[in-house]
Amino acid sequence: MKLAVIPGDGIGPEVVAEGLKVLKGVVPSVETTTYDLGAARWHRTGELLPDSVLRELRDHDAILLGAVGDPTVPSGILERGLLLRIRFELDHHVNLRPARLYPGVVGPLAGDQAIDLLVLREGTEGPYVGNGGLLRKDTPHEIATEVSLNTYFGVERVVRDAFRRAARRPRKHLTLVHKTNVLVHAGQLWSRVVEEVSMEFPDVTVAYAHVDAAMIYLVTDPGRFDVIVTDNLFGDILTDLAAAVSGGIGLAASANLDVSGANPSMFEPVHGSAPDIAGAGTADPTATVLSVALLLDHLGLPDAARRVEAAVAFDLATRQPGSAGKTTAIGDRLAALASS
Amino acid sequence: MKLAVIPGDGIGPEVVAEGLKVLKGVVPSVETTTYDLGAARWHRTGELLPDSVLRELRDHDAILLGAVGDPTVPSGILERGLLLRIRFELDHHVNLRPARLYPGVVGPLAGDQAIDLLVLREGTEGPYVGNGGLLRKDTPHEIATEVSLNTYFGVERVVRDAFRRAARRPRKHLTLVHKTNVLVHAGQLWSRVVEEVSMEFPDVTVAYAHVDAAMIYLVTDPGRFDVIVTDNLFGDILTDLAAAVSGGIGLAASANLDVSGANPSMFEPVHGSAPDIAGAGTADPTATVLSVALLLDHLGLPDAARRVEAAVAFDLATRQPGSAGKTTAIGDRLAALASS
Ligand SMILES: CC(C)[C@H](C(=O)O)[C@@H](O)C(=O)O
Ligand SMILES: CC(C)[C@H](C(=O)O)[C@@H](O)C(=O)O
Repeated sequence: MKLAVIPGDGIGPEVVAEGLKVLKGVVPSVETTTYDLGAARWHRTGELLPDSVLRELRDHDAILLGAVGDPTVPSGILERGLLLRIRFELDHHVNLRPARLYPGVVGPLAGDQAIDLLVLREGTEGPYVGNGGLLRKDTPHEIATEVSLNTYFGVERVVRDAFRRAARRPRKHLTLVHKTNVLVHAGQLWSRVVEEVSMEFPDVTVAYAHVDAAMIYLVTDPGRFDVIVTDNLFGDILTDLAAAVSGGIGLAASANLDVSGANPSMFEPVHGSAPDIAGAGTADPTATVLSVALLLDHLGLPDAARRVEAAVAFDLATRQPGSAGKTTAIGDRLAALASS
Repeated sequence: MKLAVIPGDGIGPEVVAEGLKVLKGVVPSVETTTYDLGAARWHRTGELLPDSVLRELRDHDAILLGAVGDPTVPSGILERGLLLRIRFELDHHVNLRPARLYPGVVGPLAGDQAIDLLVLREGTEGPYVGNGGLLRKDTPHEIATEVSLNTYFGVERVVRDAFRRAARRPRKHLTLVHKTNVLVHAGQLWSRVVEEVSMEFPDVTVAYAHVDAAMIYLVTDPGRFDVIVTDNLFGDILTDLAAAVSGGIGLAASANLDVSGANPSMFEPVHGSAPDIAGAGTADPTATVLSVALLLDHLGLPDAARRVEAAVAFDLATRQPGSAGKTTAIGDRLAALASS
């Protein structure tokens, strides 16, 4: 297994080190190449993602990314020039984000919640394409546009993957989240595709929720969701909330998949670079370790993936409340549990 | 006071009746005209909002709306042809949505939360303009676009109103919610306007949150927010979540304001028509009554507004948990409390 590693900014390097520790415990043969992309390189050279590096990345089986973003870099530069650029260049059309409330984890919602949902966020189009502009900039007549692009090609492949995954889960339930009553053009396309593809998956029940209603459900009745498929921007918003109600983004894993396998997929914790705690050794590497489990699944090593997940589940169930411990201590525990 | 009343669909007529009961208790001189817009009229005549009715609406001091939407009407028809049409035609550029956790109300979040925030959602542009289209519809090459339009004119007036309102509140804190790192064009405009207008309000502290992060804050630390200003779509999503964590959309009021006063403003509960409980007499009219308080404020009757709010606060604090009571019983109690 040839793995490209992008530790990135802030707590990125700290959590990635623990993710690799766990990975090497279960797959000792992994070969890693580290790329120093991120704020430091940008400051030093002005480079975000040189074409040569992009070519090298393509030559790996997968990419593990820590976090991107730094207060010393203007907002958007690293996000668009590095993170989103990789997602788009490597055609990461399925952004997979499970949200699960593990036993022992205390979430922000009152009462007992059973949360185990899987969000498939489209990753290569929608409002994220960067299509838009400014007219009469810096005048009182300025106009700014943002264009959301949605293609049958792009919607169909993520919807199809969502149905495939739903069909393999016990509840076999899929919810489309959109705002079809207002964004009628994109809404028609998404609705049509879900209806079409559903014909091929008669076992999967289908529901629809407006994105605003989905927010309410996520805090009042998150157990109603099984698989959710949604667009790039709604998925961004929805998965942060899903992570929050499942115990926080400190535990939220994600996979940016090119399901076709033509390009390497990328695995990253949903949390950002958290500059406020960078270097303190207190960042929770669990989200990165769970992203490693998604990586193992994607590379056809489900047994190893289940071992990593079981290690996390055990560790979370037995952690002292409030005292998650140091980054390396958690990594050591998880690595020992997963490879034992 | 000349009030146009649009009871609308589902539970709309039930909650509006109670809202009017309370209003007439505090402002006996109110004159109402009822308009039968909604699903029934559309089925009967195919009309959504005839031009003649729109002209008549303009001739009122304010509009009270119950709810719009019915399962027998294709999704989007009533929303866009009636509700959004009124908001756009009457230039309701400030969609005001307070979210407050009243004593006695049990929300979905664990622990004690102090929630008292005010969202100003832009109401006349953004992704809601209906600008977009379909190419190669119903083929495997279909493309759907949605264009978000943002103007300095439109952004400035809602941002200015948000600063004005923030300056009058004890905490004087304003948060811009957007996704400036991805939607860079609209993001630049919104950021620039907030920075510019903030110069005129040196007492108001300013913060920024990405919309995805704002979702997390709303369930982990909602007390951090005072006034929030945001675009039409982010505001739609954010206010449903803010309502949910403050005890549910059954309590969430809203005002669609033309701050200039050139057109009548419209007041409506955030909840929809709830067809599942329509006619049962169990709908909670509190959100409508709180919308009446917003109406009284807007029409320069703050004392009456405070009396209505105090009635709601008292009633919520003394309601038996779980047994809100019947629609008319709540309305009777609130009317008696507000006018006593
Ligand atoms: C950093 C940002 C560009 C990114 C996104 O919006 O996709 C992040 O919020 C995420 O969800 O991975
Ligand atoms: C019904 C719908 C068009 C409307 C909106 O999206 O604005 C509603 O969700 C709201 O928030 O008032």
